Amino acid sequence: MRARVLVASCILLALWTSFGWAQGRAAAPPQVRSPEVGADRRVTFRVMAPGATEVILTGEFMTGSKPLEKNSQGLWSITIGPIEPEIYNYNFTIDGVRTIDPNNPHVKTGSTPSTIASILEVGAGHPAFYDAQPVPHGEIRTHWYESKALNTVRRLTVYTPPGYDRDTRTRYPVLYLFHGANADETAWARFGHVNLILDNLLAAGKAKPFVVVMPFGYGVEPGSPPPGGGASSNTALFSRDLLEDVIPFVGSHYRVLGDRDHRAIAGLSMGGGESLEIGLSHPELFGYVGGFSAAVRAANLQQTFGGLTADLRSANKKLHLLWIGCGTDDSLFAANQGFSKFLEAANIQHVFRQSDGAHTWMVWRRYLNQFAPLLF
Amino acid sequence: MRARVLVASCILLALWTSFGWAQGRAAAPPQVRSPEVGADRRVTFRVMAPGATEVILTGEFMTGSKPLEKNSQGLWSITIGPIEPEIYNYNFTIDGVRTIDPNNPHVKTGSTPSTIASILEVGAGHPAFYDAQPVPHGEIRTHWYESKALNTVRRLTVYTPPGYDRDTRTRYPVLYLFHGANADETAWARFGHVNLILDNLLAAGKAKPFVVVMPFGYGVEPGSPPPGGGASSNTALFSRDLLEDVIPFVGSHYRVLGDRDHRAIAGLSMGGGESLEIGLSHPELFGYVGGFSAAVRAANLQQTFGGLTADLRSANKKLHLLWIGCGTDDSLFAANQGFSKFLEAANIQHVFRQSDGAHTWMVWRRYLNQFAPLLF
Repeated sequence: MRARVLVASCILLALWTSFGWAQGRAAAPPQVRSPEVGADRRVTFRVMAPGATEVILTGEFMTGSKPLEKNSQGLWSITIGPIEPEIYNYNFTIDGVRTIDPNNPHVKTGSTPSTIASILEVGAGHPAFYDAQPVPHGEIRTHWYESKALNTVRRLTVYTPPGYDRDTRTRYPVLYLFHGANADETAWARFGHVNLILDNLLAAGKAKPFVVVMPFGYGVEPGSPPPGGGASSNTALFSRDLLEDVIPFVGSHYRVLGDRDHRAIAGLSMGGGESLEIGLSHPELFGYVGGFSAAVRAANLQQTFGGLTADLRSANKKLHLLWIGCGTDDSLFAANQGFSKFLEAANIQHVFRQSDGAHTWMVWRRYLNQFAPLLF
Repeated sequence: MRARVLVASCILLALWTSFGWAQGRAAAPPQVRSPEVGADRRVTFRVMAPGATEVILTGEFMTGSKPLEKNSQGLWSITIGPIEPEIYNYNFTIDGVRTIDPNNPHVKTGSTPSTIASILEVGAGHPAFYDAQPVPHGEIRTHWYESKALNTVRRLTVYTPPGYDRDTRTRYPVLYLFHGANADETAWARFGHVNLILDNLLAAGKAKPFVVVMPFGYGVEPGSPPPGGGASSNTALFSRDLLEDVIPFVGSHYRVLGDRDHRAIAGLSMGGGESLEIGLSHPELFGYVGGFSAAVRAANLQQTFGGLTADLRSANKKLHLLWIGCGTDDSLFAANQGFSKFLEAANIQHVFRQSDGAHTWMVWRRYLNQFAPLLF
């Protein structure tokens, strides 16, 4: 909400700091508005760089890249659009160095530098399904817990639905929800707006209240070459943290229902690979499984999911929902389509949602908004 | 803890993404390690910028700036130090554009772009007072609440001490703790490590358990020229949000003690100006008041704090603690020293902590570590 107001109304974002203000000092650098969203949803990007020879814009609102133009004062700018209402990532490349828009306070970060980007929010004039609205709000809670499996202190993000603290007798179903590669345990709250999406669904009576648990989805160091078995090794280590530390921690700290009929698992990209592998190999723990643009390792389907297909009757009886979604512009689309065909050939009941879009948070916010009403 | 491991051990941070990994693709850009902390605590900063003509480093670990040097591959680098163990901000200026280190995932952000910086963490080989340690941990909780005073939905960060959720009969004292200009309600948790500092103090038996409430400390739009009365107008609007919305919200959502003897108020910089003005003009609400490098408006002391000095006996009786700290390298030092002299002349009991340091999170983490044991 604040982000929307800040970016969309484009007040003097920049450089006149209140620290200067408190002391009555004027700010040194000139004011540069970037990004500036017009009433027609055309967006102007600017950066003051008199010494630069080239400034290039890339962003999720367009394909490819576009050069900015320099004026006589050394201010580079470009206007594009109109742009559809959404939340987008973008970057500048200044003289060959990919970086953020230095005049935009909204920055996407994660566990590796490859995820760093500036955030552009274009409003529709009315709140979107992922915006803060005047409805009852849940909470985001952050725990520091000891992962005995990984021998470290790490963080865990938890969403509790509105009223969780007041109604101290109710026990809730729980969704374990994983981020993608290069992100961290804060990503679903910061960029996925998980809490606002669920608050809005609950207020509209479209979903049941449940707790969402978002762990740090790495067993190996982010960005490092995985030891030995690659993604499989990472998933195996993360799986130990999840099953041996996270789930018991949640069981002892939250009023959650502990049976498979009230436990779901889902994730995006790398986290989708994890949720499918862990979820489908533990039907005794998870009754609902989701993969959003999942990093399915297409070459190993039989090896990874052979256990599932071996006992078809049991699988279809136990799995209340197996939901797979992927955008047709996503480079993982073929792998997900292949996985759906593999399941189809084995007569495993599932939903394959083939949507517009690429490998972006726009897609994953929409998937969560479609997936959540199907749970519990 | 993870941040320390990531930066200090300098694994291949960069560009080999797991998304590529999942698909067996090699990463495109070359690997650049930056920052790299040596065993001797000398630190090397690097950036690949073959097209740039000048790259400059600024950082809290040194005064002024230093140019990086370019090799024949276009890789710019500089090694400095040894650097004392601490957490520092730094920036690159590439061809005149101030930006982050594109190879470092740890980025400081806030409510305006002036606060954006890369974060360097230099470890001492043993945990610091602000590091995650294997002790009982409290929680950070994030609420979205309706501010009726400001007619908006905004966020609130709350720390609850270890065991808060289990011991459901105990009521706790509460500290209202404010961030500085250009920051937001997440700053004390993300950069101040408020929870880890208090967890460590509690584990050592050096502080009493209390709840910490960290609101978004702006009444006006961050970075915008304040309407009319400047800082005073911002404080007046923020004060309404605090007194009319935040404190009642906390009273109805948390098991806190509601009397002045169990309520403290403190803040840093702009937030220090707010905590002193609001705290000292409401002795019926706050028994403990702290200002960390506070933006004291030196010209208006009598006007702002005249109510306090008018009834000396009552002030000294009611104020359990008035704690002011400022670093001698801080441009606000003279104003804080002047405020201390003003209080001294009026015979108002207080602590003036004149420390090393400038206007940095290093100072404010230490102040919290000194201030918290004096509360309640």
